[in-house]
Amino acid sequence: MHSVIDMKWAVLATWKMSENGNRIASEILSENGKASEAVLQGISDVEDNPNFHSVGFGGRPDINCRVILDGGYMDGDTLHFGAVGAIEGFRSPIHIAYSLKEGDANNFLVGKGAEEYAEKHGFEKRDNLTKEMVALYEQEKEKRKQLSAYDGHDTVCFLAKDTYNSICAGTSTSGLFMKEKGRLGDTPVVGNGFYADSKTGAAAATGMGEEIMKGCLSYGAVMYMKMGMSAQESAERVLWELHNELVERNGYANPMSLIVLDKDGNFGVSTNIEFTFTYASDQHPGETYIAKPVEGRTVITKATEE
Amino acid sequence: MHSVIDMKWAVLATWKMSENGNRIASEILSENGKASEAVLQGISDVEDNPNFHSVGFGGRPDINCRVILDGGYMDGDTLHFGAVGAIEGFRSPIHIAYSLKEGDANNFLVGKGAEEYAEKHGFEKRDNLTKEMVALYEQEKEKRKQLSAYDGHDTVCFLAKDTYNSICAGTSTSGLFMKEKGRLGDTPVVGNGFYADSKTGAAAATGMGEEIMKGCLSYGAVMYMKMGMSAQESAERVLWELHNELVERNGYANPMSLIVLDKDGNFGVSTNIEFTFTYASDQHPGETYIAKPVEGRTVITKATEE
Repeated sequence: MHSVIDMKWAVLATWKMSENGNRIASEILSENGKASEAVLQGISDVEDNPNFHSVGFGGRPDINCRVILDGGYMDGDTLHFGAVGAIEGFRSPIHIAYSLKEGDANNFLVGKGAEEYAEKHGFEKRDNLTKEMVALYEQEKEKRKQLSAYDGHDTVCFLAKDTYNSICAGTSTSGLFMKEKGRLGDTPVVGNGFYADSKTGAAAATGMGEEIMKGCLSYGAVMYMKMGMSAQESAERVLWELHNELVERNGYANPMSLIVLDKDGNFGVSTNIEFTFTYASDQHPGETYIAKPVEGRTVITKATEE
Repeated sequence: MHSVIDMKWAVLATWKMSENGNRIASEILSENGKASEAVLQGISDVEDNPNFHSVGFGGRPDINCRVILDGGYMDGDTLHFGAVGAIEGFRSPIHIAYSLKEGDANNFLVGKGAEEYAEKHGFEKRDNLTKEMVALYEQEKEKRKQLSAYDGHDTVCFLAKDTYNSICAGTSTSGLFMKEKGRLGDTPVVGNGFYADSKTGAAAATGMGEEIMKGCLSYGAVMYMKMGMSAQESAERVLWELHNELVERNGYANPMSLIVLDKDGNFGVSTNIEFTFTYASDQHPGETYIAKPVEGRTVITKATEE
């Protein structure tokens, strides 16, 4: 897809819904803004859009028809991270997660404790449940008697490298549609949903969180890069190893997609379902790509080519 | 410490407080019981003992003087896991975590959602706050004006291999003393606090959860074993890599200890503080060991030798 070169800045994000956020992030990075700012603003753009039904405002509700959010952030310079899980009634989980990265303890807060923290620190509140999603919930409740599969596991993940060579990772999601109360997926879980190390690179995952957590995809990808593999090799290796182990042991593997950014800004992507992502750098205009699994590896094309 | 041989069964657990639980687990395994049963009963023994102040009954309270518990379990045959975080008022987090490993989704529950699940499924309730811990809390509240360090991060972790060559991992803790409401450490977080793969081995961590999560110690150790390192080499490599990176980037590293069991039942242990653990196998009578960091590696001696 691209040669291995040293980008001044780069940003890689999950799903087509990240297109506008990626433009915002690219503008920040191209003007020598920080990777953290690019990730926060890129993800916020998705959180605020009610047309994206797996993140923030307009996200799919849980089993009790409540929109419950998760988010995570990791700073690749210090390895500090912050995360919130099972939080309700706030505008931007990624901003709350980001603020939690300071200090040695209490960086990962869940449930009422996370909500009290957010309230105390003045984070903006918002009722994230839209009428459209209430209607979807009612409809699904009827259908669910026949259904067992889960849907709506499209987490927004942003990985960014800035002109200071800092790398960071951020995630935000409303989680599985009709999830049980208090359910966490991989999104707020460091090493599983996201990982960043400015010396090596970063990775983040989307798909069935419970499946992704069986193999710590994000940390695994960064570890493989540390051993000398490219972003693409690392992405393929860690995802397909897990996929194949799960098929061998359990007979199947649920959807998993992984984005990887190396320390020089080159990307790698792997997936066992059809998956879209966006990428831009100082040497690549912003573009949306489609990734598909073909015989145990990932084939990537520009969306415009389809 | 020991030669690399193929044990019929083995059990490795964190801290001296696991001595009695290790005896219980060893008895189960020596009579061809399952690794899961050994881990559940070994950890339960620690959860039920009010003299151990970092796990279950008699655990240290959080910032609001409430005993809030975390636990995790992973099945090395299927890679399925279950976990509960920030749960109050139940006797045995490890049993609740174990029950959550079934099914494709909702395997990791936190807060009120976890409590409602436990209640619905009939798990035994218990008020885990003892008078002794209320007194400690009151005392600490006074002192805290001068203190910034956290204490009481002694998670009980059990790793077991049974005579059917199945390996599993379990953890249980009341978390950091005076932790914020809703704080999760590494204990309920797969890949960070625990990981198990019967084909390779298992690992589990204790110490400052937030520090352990910066490098996914448990998954990292299993990954290194997969690449051919011994349990001891893997334990040392993953812990000291993280320790050294943190010292380089942030000037210090908080306490971390790691136990590793390979697929043949041999153990490895690494730590950056003084740390005790217990180990038994069909070829080693149950023993308590002391591990100490000496010049960037871990020196292990039998506790009776000290």
